[in-house]
Amino acid sequence: MVDVIALGEPLVQFNSFTSGPLRFVNYFEKHIAGSELNFCIAVIRNHLSCGLIARVGNDEFGRNIIEYSRAQGIDTTYIKVDKETFTGIYFIQRGYPIPMKSELIYYRKGSAGSRLSPEDVDETYIRSARLVHSTGITLAISDSAKEAVIKAFELAKSRSLDTNIRPKLWSSLEKARETILPILKKYDIEVLVTDPDDTKILLDVTDPDDAYRKYKELGVKVLLYKLGAKGAMAYKDNVKAFKEGYKVQVEDPTGAGDAMAGTFISLYLQGKGIEYSLAHGIAASTIVITVRGDNELTPTTEDAERFLNEFKT
Amino acid sequence: MVDVIALGEPLVQFNSFTSGPLRFVNYFEKHIAGSELNFCIAVIRNHLSCGLIARVGNDEFGRNIIEYSRAQGIDTTYIKVDKETFTGIYFIQRGYPIPMKSELIYYRKGSAGSRLSPEDVDETYIRSARLVHSTGITLAISDSAKEAVIKAFELAKSRSLDTNIRPKLWSSLEKARETILPILKKYDIEVLVTDPDDTKILLDVTDPDDAYRKYKELGVKVLLYKLGAKGAMAYKDNVKAFKEGYKVQVEDPTGAGDAMAGTFISLYLQGKGIEYSLAHGIAASTIVITVRGDNELTPTTEDAERFLNEFKT
Amino acid sequence: MVDVIALGEPLVQFNSFTSGPLRFVNYFEKHIAGSELNFCIAVIRNHLSCGLIARVGNDEFGRNIIEYSRAQGIDTTYIKVDKETFTGIYFIQRGYPIPMKSELIYYRKGSAGSRLSPEDVDETYIRSARLVHSTGITLAISDSAKEAVIKAFELAKSRSLDTNIRPKLWSSLEKARETILPILKKYDIEVLVTDPDDTKILLDVTDPDDAYRKYKELGVKVLLYKLGAKGAMAYKDNVKAFKEGYKVQVEDPTGAGDAMAGTFISLYLQGKGIEYSLAHGIAASTIVITVRGDNELTPTTEDAERFLNEFKT
Amino acid sequence: MVDVIALGEPLVQFNSFTSGPLRFVNYFEKHIAGSELNFCIAVIRNHLSCGLIARVGNDEFGRNIIEYSRAQGIDTTYIKVDKETFTGIYFIQRGYPIPMKSELIYYRKGSAGSRLSPEDVDETYIRSARLVHSTGITLAISDSAKEAVIKAFELAKSRSLDTNIRPKLWSSLEKARETILPILKKYDIEVLVTDPDDTKILLDVTDPDDAYRKYKELGVKVLLYKLGAKGAMAYKDNVKAFKEGYKVQVEDPTGAGDAMAGTFISLYLQGKGIEYSLAHGIAASTIVITVRGDNELTPTTEDAERFLNEFKT
Amino acid sequence: MVDVIALGEPLVQFNSFTSGPLRFVNYFEKHIAGSELNFCIAVIRNHLSCGLIARVGNDEFGRNIIEYSRAQGIDTTYIKVDKETFTGIYFIQRGYPIPMKSELIYYRKGSAGSRLSPEDVDETYIRSARLVHSTGITLAISDSAKEAVIKAFELAKSRSLDTNIRPKLWSSLEKARETILPILKKYDIEVLVTDPDDTKILLDVTDPDDAYRKYKELGVKVLLYKLGAKGAMAYKDNVKAFKEGYKVQVEDPTGAGDAMAGTFISLYLQGKGIEYSLAHGIAASTIVITVRGDNELTPTTEDAERFLNEFKT
Amino acid sequence: MVDVIALGEPLVQFNSFTSGPLRFVNYFEKHIAGSELNFCIAVIRNHLSCGLIARVGNDEFGRNIIEYSRAQGIDTTYIKVDKETFTGIYFIQRGYPIPMKSELIYYRKGSAGSRLSPEDVDETYIRSARLVHSTGITLAISDSAKEAVIKAFELAKSRSLDTNIRPKLWSSLEKARETILPILKKYDIEVLVTDPDDTKILLDVTDPDDAYRKYKELGVKVLLYKLGAKGAMAYKDNVKAFKEGYKVQVEDPTGAGDAMAGTFISLYLQGKGIEYSLAHGIAASTIVITVRGDNELTPTTEDAERFLNEFKT
Repeated sequence: MVDVIALGEPLVQFNSFTSGPLRFVNYFEKHIAGSELNFCIAVIRNHLSCGLIARVGNDEFGRNIIEYSRAQGIDTTYIKVDKETFTGIYFIQRGYPIPMKSELIYYRKGSAGSRLSPEDVDETYIRSARLVHSTGITLAISDSAKEAVIKAFELAKSRSLDTNIRPKLWSSLEKARETILPILKKYDIEVLVTDPDDTKILLDVTDPDDAYRKYKELGVKVLLYKLGAKGAMAYKDNVKAFKEGYKVQVEDPTGAGDAMAGTFISLYLQGKGIEYSLAHGIAASTIVITVRGDNELTPTTEDAERFLNEFKT
Repeated sequence: MVDVIALGEPLVQFNSFTSGPLRFVNYFEKHIAGSELNFCIAVIRNHLSCGLIARVGNDEFGRNIIEYSRAQGIDTTYIKVDKETFTGIYFIQRGYPIPMKSELIYYRKGSAGSRLSPEDVDETYIRSARLVHSTGITLAISDSAKEAVIKAFELAKSRSLDTNIRPKLWSSLEKARETILPILKKYDIEVLVTDPDDTKILLDVTDPDDAYRKYKELGVKVLLYKLGAKGAMAYKDNVKAFKEGYKVQVEDPTGAGDAMAGTFISLYLQGKGIEYSLAHGIAASTIVITVRGDNELTPTTEDAERFLNEFKT
Repeated sequence: MVDVIALGEPLVQFNSFTSGPLRFVNYFEKHIAGSELNFCIAVIRNHLSCGLIARVGNDEFGRNIIEYSRAQGIDTTYIKVDKETFTGIYFIQRGYPIPMKSELIYYRKGSAGSRLSPEDVDETYIRSARLVHSTGITLAISDSAKEAVIKAFELAKSRSLDTNIRPKLWSSLEKARETILPILKKYDIEVLVTDPDDTKILLDVTDPDDAYRKYKELGVKVLLYKLGAKGAMAYKDNVKAFKEGYKVQVEDPTGAGDAMAGTFISLYLQGKGIEYSLAHGIAASTIVITVRGDNELTPTTEDAERFLNEFKT
Repeated sequence: MVDVIALGEPLVQFNSFTSGPLRFVNYFEKHIAGSELNFCIAVIRNHLSCGLIARVGNDEFGRNIIEYSRAQGIDTTYIKVDKETFTGIYFIQRGYPIPMKSELIYYRKGSAGSRLSPEDVDETYIRSARLVHSTGITLAISDSAKEAVIKAFELAKSRSLDTNIRPKLWSSLEKARETILPILKKYDIEVLVTDPDDTKILLDVTDPDDAYRKYKELGVKVLLYKLGAKGAMAYKDNVKAFKEGYKVQVEDPTGAGDAMAGTFISLYLQGKGIEYSLAHGIAASTIVITVRGDNELTPTTEDAERFLNEFKT
Repeated sequence: MVDVIALGEPLVQFNSFTSGPLRFVNYFEKHIAGSELNFCIAVIRNHLSCGLIARVGNDEFGRNIIEYSRAQGIDTTYIKVDKETFTGIYFIQRGYPIPMKSELIYYRKGSAGSRLSPEDVDETYIRSARLVHSTGITLAISDSAKEAVIKAFELAKSRSLDTNIRPKLWSSLEKARETILPILKKYDIEVLVTDPDDTKILLDVTDPDDAYRKYKELGVKVLLYKLGAKGAMAYKDNVKAFKEGYKVQVEDPTGAGDAMAGTFISLYLQGKGIEYSLAHGIAASTIVITVRGDNELTPTTEDAERFLNEFKT
Repeated sequence: MVDVIALGEPLVQFNSFTSGPLRFVNYFEKHIAGSELNFCIAVIRNHLSCGLIARVGNDEFGRNIIEYSRAQGIDTTYIKVDKETFTGIYFIQRGYPIPMKSELIYYRKGSAGSRLSPEDVDETYIRSARLVHSTGITLAISDSAKEAVIKAFELAKSRSLDTNIRPKLWSSLEKARETILPILKKYDIEVLVTDPDDTKILLDVTDPDDAYRKYKELGVKVLLYKLGAKGAMAYKDNVKAFKEGYKVQVEDPTGAGDAMAGTFISLYLQGKGIEYSLAHGIAASTIVITVRGDNELTPTTEDAERFLNEFKT
């Protein structure tokens, strides 16, 4: 039994060894990632336990995901090996056409991970956890995956959601809105993680205060509002906190949001205030973007502490 | 207008930088491959022109295939960019569980390349070529691709086929036989490239002489019969040639058969005898297996000559 | 027949894998470069066609240049293989003694590329193009190369020149001035690409406005005036535009000027205003300096557009 | 509770990226190894469970060992983090002065692993296992480690020992003999793994039959006698089996013996005959020496089966 | 006979190829380092001769240190091969948990280098040099090493000391103070290199002017006071100089202080003013932190000159 | 003063990181080489001292050669920095078109090394040495280099020559013969190193016994006759020795002959018999071909001993 459970598709990431259009990249570096897997690792580095409900293929990449998850302390009991199909992967093109930004190229359509379904969601397991987490990615990858999230949210004591709208995964932005909004409305979301771009799609506002007001009306208790390089904000009980971003040498921003979300939520669940949790979330996302790989550098609470005390930009 | 035309799916290959199960491989090296693309390069290195009829996705990997093909002198006029879907890729696991052997892990289902269809086959282009080539892979990847091969064979002056039965691509071996055999029967095959494993599936014999007799009855004119590390045989007009394989340090055997087929057929079309063409084919496959990458080391006629004169095992 | 023709020496570049004095560098990464080749790629990425008049040696590096050029869409009809001598190469020492700057170490004396000569310049080809481009490098590498440029300029509809004075290639700076100035005087230059250092040598001024006035008197129609990290200016018909440079993580500034020149000129030839062309030129040079390799990351018009809209320093 | 328990020091291995004296090696590749850890992985790949009793330091390398062990399925309950000292490491020099052979350079004196002690040996854990394994290395690294082995052997249902005499770890060969022989005498050894070199030291014989006779007198039930590249022999109940070694391209022979021992013992414990177990052991050691890394390629029972059926030297 | 002599432990450095916790680093890059060795190279790059009094093990790493030192022009006459023990090494973890900062993990306890002793200090050699240098590291690694420094300081014409307090090497900070302060008091220190952290420990002040006053009272003639990224100050005869740090892309700050110290002292000994020497020292430390490796990029006087003239942040 | 002196051009070698035509190689690994430099290192590893008379350019590659030579113990007193021109370099293409063979592509025409001249040959230095060595390469690269060898041979106590005829460096094979034969005739050669190919050119025989008879007539005292992979023979006083070659995994055969020559001659000069010296020479060449780099793995006498005792093919 674990403190936190996440539902989503773990993926094998092939990160470009050199920047630029993929056709000019000769070597690729393998990492294990996926938004919810990244989230789990952040939860664990901050000393709560976390389980991942997911499917992988019966292949080397699937085994890789399970072994890596186990190594990092994720409860892998509910990572199911789906013998029908393959493990999802993606490539990262770094620094082109926008320096310090990355593009993701997915090979996940029809993947084992996208076949996540309500039958994978064990009622006892869900009921035992303090919080169940998922993201807009899981809601997008298949109907059965969406249903799995709904089943889990139905059974959960408490829920967090990262809207994480990846336009490539949705047939249209309307579809994204029509899928995510009802879930926000139906289930009280303890912590919502989102940003101005997603909020524009969902609620047609971008201003943080406006966003908080509207999300609150939908039942969101705590809002973590990511502002990219500028930093992030957190709201709870009409109190808001802002933490400016740090300037560092960026290698790959992929995974920064997941590190922030998992860190924030893990600490919040342990009773830390939103300011403290936010600062640690920012520390986590700052460190993570200095390297390839989404979760290896996600700091422990103690290491984020050191960062916050010692880092000078 | 070109001497030879091949139809098939070009792929981006991610070759393991180190040997062993993929989950332990940290770096992957990109190459451009695909059986018919490899074949084309071998044809060209032996001084005939060659065009590839194929589809790639509208993505970096598709552009990579076109640029590489163009660089290597392939006529890319009929490589179509299919905006609906992605470019097929595959991973190579080397040396496990069999040292010096490789396993291929495909991400090509639903790929642009598999959507090759009769509409991609230009009648004038086909009629102008001396020979049209394809493989059992193209016959396996989709119905439309198979139809494209049939249309091209219908229009072709002369045909070559490499049976190349990859069990992973067929629903069953019966399906492979039921697809390939009728094509062998219907179209006079100028040069058939195959091996004992495929012949066992197709004709239930493995002995080279038996195989030749049976294939000849089906209308095959020249048979190139590959025997793996042992070498290869060639038959024409009841004359047979045998060339023993060379012992070299093997890095990755993938692509060896394509190099042999393209070399043999290119030289044969230029009027060289089967013994000469076979020796050069063996030279090509021998050199190719010493490296990662299927076609970069495919030798020119002159370089194969040097190999045959100078190489001492 | 192509829109733009460039004359110059393509080179194989060996870029240091790690920064510092070359004697401490253990690995070198191969790229294909040369100022005019870089320029051609920028022209093509912005959707005009471009041909390169050049010589390479009859060796692997020469073949590499031709294959790469062909891959990138350069018309290679007039890249001649000179069997008498070798292909020119150079090494790049990065970050020493000036961080973010590079030093070039040439092995090009007596190279095939430096043997470019008027006989390589085909009259019909030149007359058919909208613009002929070369650089101060081509004027420096040999008398015959200089004569080739003069012959091409003589026949051209329109001309562009990048002064590109590399002190190592000239016996003295006077020699550079005495060679370049008469060409500026004799031929109306449609677009001149230069910077304060070169203008100091040529005209003994550095101020942009002064420079423009003086170059205009010499018949220059459009001036692209590069200011390094600060950005660049463009002048036409007494109108001037300035575009500030962007702050990015610099890996190797080599090739930035060529990307800017080719982008600017390609867009200018397509009727874009100098402000638009300049902004795209800056986008191109900014992206190119974030990596090793001079031209792989030169953006298409559309990708530069994205950069200009989305990049936040 | 696990089937097999091993006691020993897990180590971080830094394997030379290129062959030759270490002073000429610029890059090192990290692996997780140690004779007993390698053994455990082989046991697990053959479908028994295995736990490792060991100590690591409270540092990144210690965490690395625990995470890797957990990933590979080793029961890490009894891997203790010793905060007093560091995790042991070693370097591998490959191919010099003997091609295809390796030299090990240890930094393990005073390491956490060498502080293994009887207090780390849990009686209930030991009693529950079918077999307890250790090696001459553990007997050599410290008195407390030796006492830990003795305590475990005392409590064990059944024991296996790999003599593994590394001269660098012993003050003298006499000391090795005086330590190992009494243990052989006192405890019935179910499976003894050794070779002619070690047997020469222990019993002053090298001939396999002589060795078996003498070891049998000491209470050894099954003998696995490794003959290097020549293969290996196994004896049980006066029946002997011999399996010839396979010729493969050797990258690093380190760990081959551990893979063979773990495979043999795992299968033997599952009731397989010595011939079958020996063949699989030879398969395992053959595959392992083709790469850097001691245990990543240790085959599963099924993969070893494929090797034995398909590999042609 | 040399101008400058340094006493200290040269080490082999294994620098992480990628940033982050060591357990996620797969490749390590070897460099030769050690504070006093770095110092010597800086002295030599600024055109004085320098010898290193040290011990290395009778192993490949020891040979590596000697060969590298010899290559870089260090007088290796008094680098003794100690056959009793091993050569000290260390690992560098970069960028975690603090981006742009490094953590050092030593394997040097009991190393040959730490066995440096007074018997290694040749009186004639010491007396012939203009200055003898050591650091707080050498004072920390062993009593015999400390005694060696004291013997050398006793015999020296002139002395410089870099306090370099590495908490990991001292049992307590008090121990550091109790060791270093008496040496400062007893021996007139020509040049003291230190920073606010060390000065806090030694004298309980951090303000530069306070520090200078107090150090001066202890007999220090010239003070080089390092302020990290902010720059550094130098004091002599109550005159002070300040040089601001430059902003560059940081790869690894290790060794920056040694480069600054060696450069400053070498130039100071050649009669350059403290402002000039300080500027060159800052140039050296700035260039060094842009790469892995402590001393390869330490600039010559001329290259630092170029940096100071041409570098624009 | 040294035991042995060699005259020749040291070069920087860029070895292909992967096998195949250079145009497909993306990374190159730098090594320091040159036939006579390789020879010197072999002499030194076998415990005689050796100096190299040579020129390098005033550039990083020149400094690299000097530093490496110094590191390896070569007396660099007479390596002159020639400010007029560049340091010679070459590329190695491995495994194409002949697996396990290499092709050398030189950029050395007009290099500093080729400007070696009689003025570089110090009479006292030469007279003090026991033997002076050079090769057919030095005789080929320039007239002045040839004259330098002649001057040195004139003054030498004793001479050795490696015929080393590289067809690319000679205008014709006749020219090679006309240059080398007179030197053989004029100067008593203590040790001649050659092979059947060179002997065919020089004397029109290839049989070892015939070759020895003819060379002996020309005044050669000891003949080392290399037979490639087959091994080598040595003759002295009508006694002959043969040592078979060992079968190893070949990475790059470049430099094998130099290692054999230097080892043989160093041991011969120390009074070892030709059989012993030949065996060590074969050990050296065998080890060297297993890696990239010509001299790093050249064994010491003791390590060759170990190889000869322990290596099993």
